[in-house]
Amino acid sequence: MAIHRFVPTTWHNVLGSLPPALRVEDGDVVITQTIDAAGYDKDGAARCPGPNPMNGPIFVAGAEPGDALVVEIIRITPIRATGWTSQVLAANVIDPERVRDLPPRNRTDWVIDLEALTARLADPVQGLENFILPLEPMIGCFGVAPSLGQAFSTATSAANGGNMDYRGFKPGTSVYLPVAVPGALFFLGDCHAIQGDGEIVGTGVETAMEVEVRLSVRKGYKLRWPRGEDADSIFTVGNARPLDQALQHATTEMLDWLTSGFGLSPIAASHLLGQVVRYEVGNVFDPAYTMVCKVERKWLPRI
Amino acid sequence: MAIHRFVPTTWHNVLGSLPPALRVEDGDVVITQTIDAAGYDKDGAARCPGPNPMNGPIFVAGAEPGDALVVEIIRITPIRATGWTSQVLAANVIDPERVRDLPPRNRTDWVIDLEALTARLADPVQGLENFILPLEPMIGCFGVAPSLGQAFSTATSAANGGNMDYRGFKPGTSVYLPVAVPGALFFLGDCHAIQGDGEIVGTGVETAMEVEVRLSVRKGYKLRWPRGEDADSIFTVGNARPLDQALQHATTEMLDWLTSGFGLSPIAASHLLGQVVRYEVGNVFDPAYTMVCKVERKWLPRI
Amino acid sequence: MAIHRFVPTTWHNVLGSLPPALRVEDGDVVITQTIDAAGYDKDGAARCPGPNPMNGPIFVAGAEPGDALVVEIIRITPIRATGWTSQVLAANVIDPERVRDLPPRNRTDWVIDLEALTARLADPVQGLENFILPLEPMIGCFGVAPSLGQAFSTATSAANGGNMDYRGFKPGTSVYLPVAVPGALFFLGDCHAIQGDGEIVGTGVETAMEVEVRLSVRKGYKLRWPRGEDADSIFTVGNARPLDQALQHATTEMLDWLTSGFGLSPIAASHLLGQVVRYEVGNVFDPAYTMVCKVERKWLPRI
Amino acid sequence: MAIHRFVPTTWHNVLGSLPPALRVEDGDVVITQTIDAAGYDKDGAARCPGPNPMNGPIFVAGAEPGDALVVEIIRITPIRATGWTSQVLAANVIDPERVRDLPPRNRTDWVIDLEALTARLADPVQGLENFILPLEPMIGCFGVAPSLGQAFSTATSAANGGNMDYRGFKPGTSVYLPVAVPGALFFLGDCHAIQGDGEIVGTGVETAMEVEVRLSVRKGYKLRWPRGEDADSIFTVGNARPLDQALQHATTEMLDWLTSGFGLSPIAASHLLGQVVRYEVGNVFDPAYTMVCKVERKWLPRI
Repeated sequence: MAIHRFVPTTWHNVLGSLPPALRVEDGDVVITQTIDAAGYDKDGAARCPGPNPMNGPIFVAGAEPGDALVVEIIRITPIRATGWTSQVLAANVIDPERVRDLPPRNRTDWVIDLEALTARLADPVQGLENFILPLEPMIGCFGVAPSLGQAFSTATSAANGGNMDYRGFKPGTSVYLPVAVPGALFFLGDCHAIQGDGEIVGTGVETAMEVEVRLSVRKGYKLRWPRGEDADSIFTVGNARPLDQALQHATTEMLDWLTSGFGLSPIAASHLLGQVVRYEVGNVFDPAYTMVCKVERKWLPRI
Repeated sequence: MAIHRFVPTTWHNVLGSLPPALRVEDGDVVITQTIDAAGYDKDGAARCPGPNPMNGPIFVAGAEPGDALVVEIIRITPIRATGWTSQVLAANVIDPERVRDLPPRNRTDWVIDLEALTARLADPVQGLENFILPLEPMIGCFGVAPSLGQAFSTATSAANGGNMDYRGFKPGTSVYLPVAVPGALFFLGDCHAIQGDGEIVGTGVETAMEVEVRLSVRKGYKLRWPRGEDADSIFTVGNARPLDQALQHATTEMLDWLTSGFGLSPIAASHLLGQVVRYEVGNVFDPAYTMVCKVERKWLPRI
Repeated sequence: MAIHRFVPTTWHNVLGSLPPALRVEDGDVVITQTIDAAGYDKDGAARCPGPNPMNGPIFVAGAEPGDALVVEIIRITPIRATGWTSQVLAANVIDPERVRDLPPRNRTDWVIDLEALTARLADPVQGLENFILPLEPMIGCFGVAPSLGQAFSTATSAANGGNMDYRGFKPGTSVYLPVAVPGALFFLGDCHAIQGDGEIVGTGVETAMEVEVRLSVRKGYKLRWPRGEDADSIFTVGNARPLDQALQHATTEMLDWLTSGFGLSPIAASHLLGQVVRYEVGNVFDPAYTMVCKVERKWLPRI
Repeated sequence: MAIHRFVPTTWHNVLGSLPPALRVEDGDVVITQTIDAAGYDKDGAARCPGPNPMNGPIFVAGAEPGDALVVEIIRITPIRATGWTSQVLAANVIDPERVRDLPPRNRTDWVIDLEALTARLADPVQGLENFILPLEPMIGCFGVAPSLGQAFSTATSAANGGNMDYRGFKPGTSVYLPVAVPGALFFLGDCHAIQGDGEIVGTGVETAMEVEVRLSVRKGYKLRWPRGEDADSIFTVGNARPLDQALQHATTEMLDWLTSGFGLSPIAASHLLGQVVRYEVGNVFDPAYTMVCKVERKWLPRI
């Protein structure tokens, strides 16, 4: 097991079958610094235009179509004392006639306290004088190359991952992604210091991070949609519009997990989901919305 | 302040401008026993056909259009040792092509332990031998008469409330409903012993409950959509399809609350929501879906 | 067979189980004058507030739940030389971020030429100097009382009809509505001199009309959603959001018609629909959208 | 102006920035034979796996980002006496609970009469004995490379075109596509002998065709979504889910065309669209649905 310090020199605005920037073995750890959603690095230097420039792709030896790439999120450390957000709700999350009254979508600067691990607005805003947020670092956009030679903008998401903006993609979480090409071709970037559900202003607190992940291959672990787990829960992810369809994808993937992976019948899986399922909302700003279907481990059968 | 023990003799399958079954003063408490979603009472006797028969309506003196009816949920006590659910996921929550493989939508019986306050499947199901659920009693369907002389089936929901099936409608929560007719005309029923997010098998654990609520009037408190609060959070509720639109309604209502009620500018409200909002999923089975937009009190400005 | 000249003295903003304003026999003809969507009559006098005041309800003898009410639209004659529209696209039919740029939703006056049977803007608008539209009179809102004692605002639509705003509801068309209460309780109003697909400014050219319909009962003709036919085609109507669901309802109803009514197997019906179906868009402004599924008679099996 | 007979030797399942198979000048005509959606050619030989193998890409000299590629569809000639369809409605176009009853999605063979220009089922189906369809050849899937180095499966569609399955893409129609890369990189394939609206069985009558198109560049003609025109009408195309969003994209693009291209104010454009717009439904089977917004030329201002 090796630890790679990956320093990208180019970045990508798509997840696709691009030439690998790094090759790692199954189980290796990668430490890399991500630039922000607009392409500014930890020193505030513009490195790449947006949207959401990605580090990568990383070729993981042994990953083949039909396997899952396991992304263990070990650490996300803020490395810049500034962040930024959009200042106003996205037009698509409020009632259409009310969009007329929205202020413009300007950017707002934030101060990130790298010692206290908090974020606050750089300029005072009435009523938010005490709005100091503990950081909850997360990876906004990550995924693998999709099938068929497709390549998707990092402004959206699909079965291969992408810009899901789910708060649960944080240290302690492992994510399973469906491998579609040899080596999986893993990308990551667009980290947030903190973000509410849905990324409803169109941004989290966008900043630069140092991320540490372990990449491994689970052979023959077929998935249609991303899966994940942490100490307490397992979850599945659907990316689509409308949110109803994202929910259908996530729920179907969880049904498959409970039946194939935990040996439940469809009826037993329905009983379990019906009474204990939790849904969490990822991105509802991008072309594809993200819905997470979650079950606490304590309800799962022992296997 | 009076306490009314309300024993209905008829039930209703709509929320509408029906003759009051009870009249109470602003601030009175009502204790009443609800029958289950299919109309069976605590003794298992059929009292009314479904869907979701309602106790009520209750006329609250002083409530006028433009006010809010405040429903303080004080207590929900299970009063029957049996419950039931549907045995299988609803067709609309999984990928359409997968519906072909679903088992039929039969009912399953549950045992409710009124001492231990738990629920379990009446008949053993492989893999769920230890699936014993602590009760989390909630009101599935409640609301007030809608405007214009409209009347809506208790199988759906709208701005006046209805079959929202949100787990947060539990003891300790107060709900604000937009009054559209004199006396508000409050209805309630369809209580669940427990239920996962979304009510995705089309039922919670359906049973009979004794419910205690305080009904009061908040004069001139104009709402478009239900609002609520508990010790920790405030929330708003949107009911519509697709879920995207329910989310728009809930988010717009929260924007209005934060600006009109807490004095934030639209930009300040956006900053707050953007980084700390939480969404929770109510019913995604009925014609109208339910999305809840929630903010923890700790982030709110002092007013 | 009698002809009734029905002169309403009150109007209704809901379709529901209200006391009949007229009783007719199966097969009778009703001639009645409708007021416009905002409640102004042919003389410009305000008779009832909006939305979409309805004439009715009309009790049709013999109609029982499980039957269909057949509404044969014989004639729609404009009776006022003025109409009005909204001046701008509805916010929900354009991309959300673009709503910021929309002009306000003011009203615009139109001139209706009752001899030439044309409509034009009352005040000149650059580029539309020659925009003179032949009238295509249609009924915007009509339907029967829904089931369960429900009552729905005339601003929306459902299985019982309502504000469908479909251009095909014009003379020569017969519509089948699912009867849910004894006498069916038929309502109509909100006629348009002309209207584009979708009613995307939120109005057609709103005006007063004289409408002549024949109302008859088709016993035991069970429907879930409205059906219709004219000389060339048969069609079904779904009312829901999103438009995808309206399309599902309409397509399912057509599948049922082709199988139950025309004796096709599901596979044969699929072949037919797959290669010759036509969809037409009704209202996409209201809470429920309307999609029409249409098949030309020439493709139907002889029965 | 040259005429190119383009005989592909490889096909593609994505629209993306692939090496050009042919280079043409602005205004050249291309004649090429397409294979069917499953990759079978005019002789029934398998040439490429599905979905929807594309001929191309064709590099059009002079096309640059910010221009439009004009695709004039001159001719689509059937070149195989056989076609095939799916035998049953797609699960996503009917009510979810009804999917349980659908027959399996097997294929059905069709006979194409290349002289009479008709299509009929190869094997008799009860009730469809006389179901002989005049051919209405159309291009199911075509488009240009998307921006950012993206590449999209030919099973879906986006702003760059793709699998739109709109009946209006037939001889006599010119289509404008937004150029995102030098040379535009044009692809086409997946022709249908005939198809109903929505491609609701998931296929048209899939077959091989000879297609003749003229490709030219309209410099500086900025589009967000495809536009088209024929002798009678102009139209715009939105590709997204739900259909509501496809309709928003198409309507916004038409608003832009009427204002920028025809000099109407937003209010004048709204008047025009509000009373004369027509919507037509393209694909409602794929991940992205297609809605067409259409205006007859006779209503357009002279420019």
